[in-house]
Amino acid sequence: MVLERIDSPAALRRLPAGELDGLAADIRQAILEAVARTGGHLGSNLGVVELTLALHRAFDSPRDVLLWDTGHQAYVHKMLTGRSGRFDTLRQAGGLSGYPARDESPHDVIENSHASTALSWAFGLACGQARLPVDERRRVVAVVGDGAMTGGMAYEALNNLGHHQLPAVIVLNDNGRSYAETVGRLSDRIADLRSDPRYRTLRDRVDRALTALPLAKRITGAGLKGLKAAVSEAPALQSFVEALGIRYVGPFDGHDVERLEHALHAVAEHLDGPVLVHVLTQKGKGYAPAETDPEMKLHDTSAFDLATGPSKQGKPATWTHVFSEALVELADERDDVVALTAAMPGSTGLLPLAERHPGRVVDVGIAEQHAVTSAAGMACGGQLPVVAVYSTFFSRAFDQANLDVGLHDEHVIYAFDRAGITGPDGASHHGVLDMALCLRVPSMTVLAPSHGEDLAALLRTATELSGPVSLRYPKGRVVTAADLGLEGRAEGLASRQVRDGGDVSVLAVGDRLAAALEAAELLAEDGIAAAVWDVRCVRPTDPRMLDAVAEAPLVVTVENGMVSAGSGAYLADRLVERAGVRHAPPVLRLGTPDAYLPHGTPDRILTELGLDGPGIAAATRKALADER
Amino acid sequence: MVLERIDSPAALRRLPAGELDGLAADIRQAILEAVARTGGHLGSNLGVVELTLALHRAFDSPRDVLLWDTGHQAYVHKMLTGRSGRFDTLRQAGGLSGYPARDESPHDVIENSHASTALSWAFGLACGQARLPVDERRRVVAVVGDGAMTGGMAYEALNNLGHHQLPAVIVLNDNGRSYAETVGRLSDRIADLRSDPRYRTLRDRVDRALTALPLAKRITGAGLKGLKAAVSEAPALQSFVEALGIRYVGPFDGHDVERLEHALHAVAEHLDGPVLVHVLTQKGKGYAPAETDPEMKLHDTSAFDLATGPSKQGKPATWTHVFSEALVELADERDDVVALTAAMPGSTGLLPLAERHPGRVVDVGIAEQHAVTSAAGMACGGQLPVVAVYSTFFSRAFDQANLDVGLHDEHVIYAFDRAGITGPDGASHHGVLDMALCLRVPSMTVLAPSHGEDLAALLRTATELSGPVSLRYPKGRVVTAADLGLEGRAEGLASRQVRDGGDVSVLAVGDRLAAALEAAELLAEDGIAAAVWDVRCVRPTDPRMLDAVAEAPLVVTVENGMVSAGSGAYLADRLVERAGVRHAPPVLRLGTPDAYLPHGTPDRILTELGLDGPGIAAATRKALADER
Repeated sequence: MVLERIDSPAALRRLPAGELDGLAADIRQAILEAVARTGGHLGSNLGVVELTLALHRAFDSPRDVLLWDTGHQAYVHKMLTGRSGRFDTLRQAGGLSGYPARDESPHDVIENSHASTALSWAFGLACGQARLPVDERRRVVAVVGDGAMTGGMAYEALNNLGHHQLPAVIVLNDNGRSYAETVGRLSDRIADLRSDPRYRTLRDRVDRALTALPLAKRITGAGLKGLKAAVSEAPALQSFVEALGIRYVGPFDGHDVERLEHALHAVAEHLDGPVLVHVLTQKGKGYAPAETDPEMKLHDTSAFDLATGPSKQGKPATWTHVFSEALVELADERDDVVALTAAMPGSTGLLPLAERHPGRVVDVGIAEQHAVTSAAGMACGGQLPVVAVYSTFFSRAFDQANLDVGLHDEHVIYAFDRAGITGPDGASHHGVLDMALCLRVPSMTVLAPSHGEDLAALLRTATELSGPVSLRYPKGRVVTAADLGLEGRAEGLASRQVRDGGDVSVLAVGDRLAAALEAAELLAEDGIAAAVWDVRCVRPTDPRMLDAVAEAPLVVTVENGMVSAGSGAYLADRLVERAGVRHAPPVLRLGTPDAYLPHGTPDRILTELGLDGPGIAAATRKALADER
Repeated sequence: MVLERIDSPAALRRLPAGELDGLAADIRQAILEAVARTGGHLGSNLGVVELTLALHRAFDSPRDVLLWDTGHQAYVHKMLTGRSGRFDTLRQAGGLSGYPARDESPHDVIENSHASTALSWAFGLACGQARLPVDERRRVVAVVGDGAMTGGMAYEALNNLGHHQLPAVIVLNDNGRSYAETVGRLSDRIADLRSDPRYRTLRDRVDRALTALPLAKRITGAGLKGLKAAVSEAPALQSFVEALGIRYVGPFDGHDVERLEHALHAVAEHLDGPVLVHVLTQKGKGYAPAETDPEMKLHDTSAFDLATGPSKQGKPATWTHVFSEALVELADERDDVVALTAAMPGSTGLLPLAERHPGRVVDVGIAEQHAVTSAAGMACGGQLPVVAVYSTFFSRAFDQANLDVGLHDEHVIYAFDRAGITGPDGASHHGVLDMALCLRVPSMTVLAPSHGEDLAALLRTATELSGPVSLRYPKGRVVTAADLGLEGRAEGLASRQVRDGGDVSVLAVGDRLAAALEAAELLAEDGIAAAVWDVRCVRPTDPRMLDAVAEAPLVVTVENGMVSAGSGAYLADRLVERAGVRHAPPVLRLGTPDAYLPHGTPDRILTELGLDGPGIAAATRKALADER
């Protein structure tokens, strides 16, 4: 294996060009084996093998700064910077992160996983370089996916890089699909380049386009000198970036290492301002199931069998599935229901709705701010928008949720998928902030179903309310009423007592109900009788629940989210409001801490945080013992 | 007066064209009188008089939807929609809002004051229109300032409007200055149009440009038919918007009502997709002090004498002044100090630094997200960035502060000006959320000086720490140590006890120290001895303060910000952490409620909220009486 001999970018630069194809093949095999075993971002990393090789040969990391936007396309970069031997630990607790990580390597400068940030980092880093003597300056290179270019931050940064004419290399990794097929007009225009009807299949699209299209021929034949002419063939993208003051070169075949390396060398040697290098790559390159998968499931996949590819059958139903089906049912009944996604229609469960009611799913690109405010506009215009978004990405649109939707009291429903601890994607992907943010929006109804049937019921209830409404549910396999031993249904927004007990009252929010019930069983073994409530609706809080727990010796709240300003804090404040600061019952709040939490399996992290049944029972025992 | 006869857009449309100049003059006079009396946004509203007249003649509001981005340029719109008689109540409690307000008029559709949102509203509204029968559809018109075009959200919306080819009219109100002179490359390119060296003075720049430049002649001579040719003279802006799929027409003289009306009529009649109408206006048009003021002080002014113009002498020192001077002093000492602003260098106090150390103030445009992440990049590159931003606008960059600065533990200092209740700009401008947001960023040190000297001291301390650090201070006249009767100085991040007392301990955060001391005096009159602390540093909390108040019969926290997840909640949690939920002292938290607060003077609002001395004393008495 060639890969075994590459322990650093320096070793890569010494490698004869003739061995690069072999190295690329080794890397693809290593990525496939690692992701098949542990899950991860497959398609994007298979797509950047040659690009990453060319970058590390043309630039001198870590002296030169390589930034990845988003960081999920950095597996090859990790392998080339001394970490190929540890890829069997990818995304496992204690193992390699699925994103760049500063504590792993000096080659990892930023740990970004939310999109569209790298150009702002590049701007800041380039500002600093200008102060230094010329021979101490580091070149700044940002590799940005075409999806990340649909985010407003990327435009803000391009505008500033152009204005200040700071030297920086922007490599546009244009795989023409991003997360989803449709991410905006500019992407369409970029895609025009290769949407020639002669090349309809995804497989080999890039290769064939780049050997057959006239512009590619000109690049191929004339190298960099031919670029000025070739550039005129990509007018929309070029004129867009040039209007912002950025030089454009390209497009280049992202799977031709030698020509890419040559082009990047040329750019690096004459870097006196911002330049965008347009590189066409094929997502999933080299692995048929990833190249052709139409539902993008191989964007971020769980472990699978390498020979057969990921199976689409026999997977357990997820919270996302339940949401997806409930949404379709509502949309069948009401023609004003419309859903929005920020470039993730598949993973947020909107594809069934899009298939059944074309035109009622709007994919705005990686643009959460616009998604939320345009939902306000839709509501104002008489539609009923449902914004389906991962909890972690809602942080991008807090101001819009507060001032556009909230202040205007528009009836917008937020469906927060992956709420709570999510696991292998690490600190930035845990969905622990949505509750702290939503409870700061004064007009928002805040819901947290504890099981699948209630997710469907609360989504329906949300459509019958007014103003903003949020629902949150976690990643993974859905819990059913039967799993919880629940019978009957809760009404409307009422909280529901699911177990009696006079020693302590446990208020469980959302998916923590299962753990709270387990804790109650454990406490019962010690003779402690715990009442357990399924809160369901955090705001407005059910006054019946407040009355019922007001005299409890201890109230325990438990939630899968940041405890410092979450639902437990909100419920505790309601108890104080009711009885005064001196007469409210003592409240022990359990949730995730004020900390950046590492990657690992959700169950393991929740256990470590004391948010499983034994953890809740132990914390409750301790708080009770304090007084006994 | 012509204005007195215009009680609705219909009356305006009936007005003979010959009377429009007189109406414009009346409106200017009315704006000047109102703003001189009450303060407000002067320059931008003087600049849009003719544009607003043309819009209300070409479109049929409220059937057609007029959106203003930002809403501060809507005074003329308000006058033309039946509210000219109430302009003497502008921005006063109970009077007209300084922004569009739904409860004032059906002509006000959105109440936006944070920039760059209107195009997303337009997108959402246009989506809804497409579902309706043709004769029920409302045309959607968004008037967007050139400053608002530097925000990433505007780009996200343009990209989506272009992709979906939704009918919408985007009026680019291009006054070439926004808040500040420099807001990014695209603005430069737009400004190229009129930066011809022949027209150097600001005054009359537009008038002269539009009668002298060849392109303007072509527009003038040939009307709309000449536009296609004229358009080729504005290549950067045109190619930028056309790359996004938007039709471009213009530029037009924004002070020629009849030609503007004609152009807008033509656009309105053939509205089958998104079109951007480029209108050149002059900020402050018709009032010399506003036209020529280089520091943009007439963007948002307080009351002034109409004859002499706003005075620049004799104003009391503000918190902003103190920050400004302290920052210059630090920058004199350390050459790594650099400051960032999102298009508000004047009002955040950065102009003295920019004058003294050119190149060490970076104005990124109205792009808070980029400001924060590029600050992370600057810190990573060895600089010490200070992000100077109004508290309310920090909500735009929470995710970046959390994941780019916070997760990476970069040494970035946030200076939150206008923190707390701000007054006349209403709900969206109150700075009540910074504390709730900053305390969710696990790595951030959170500071709140109570007086000017300590703002300077804590800013200096912030430069000596690591990781993110925030300071907050309110709008208006600064409080001094002498005002508070304080002697000596606090050290480092220590909290400081400023009054003894055994009946209750009041923990005052930031500017509430003055009110807390007043409350203690009032309580003393009732025989209640209150200890008062100047918290200074909310996180990390001073353990000495926690120890000292742990046995207090009652702890009261008071802050000028949202109480539900603010500093009081954080301090209360620290007391619980120290003693357990059963042994921590009862904590009464005072602050602003979970509500959208209307406009009015800050002192009046704070009094109504019970956050002045008498309010704090009353709440404390009540909580103590509960047990006595």
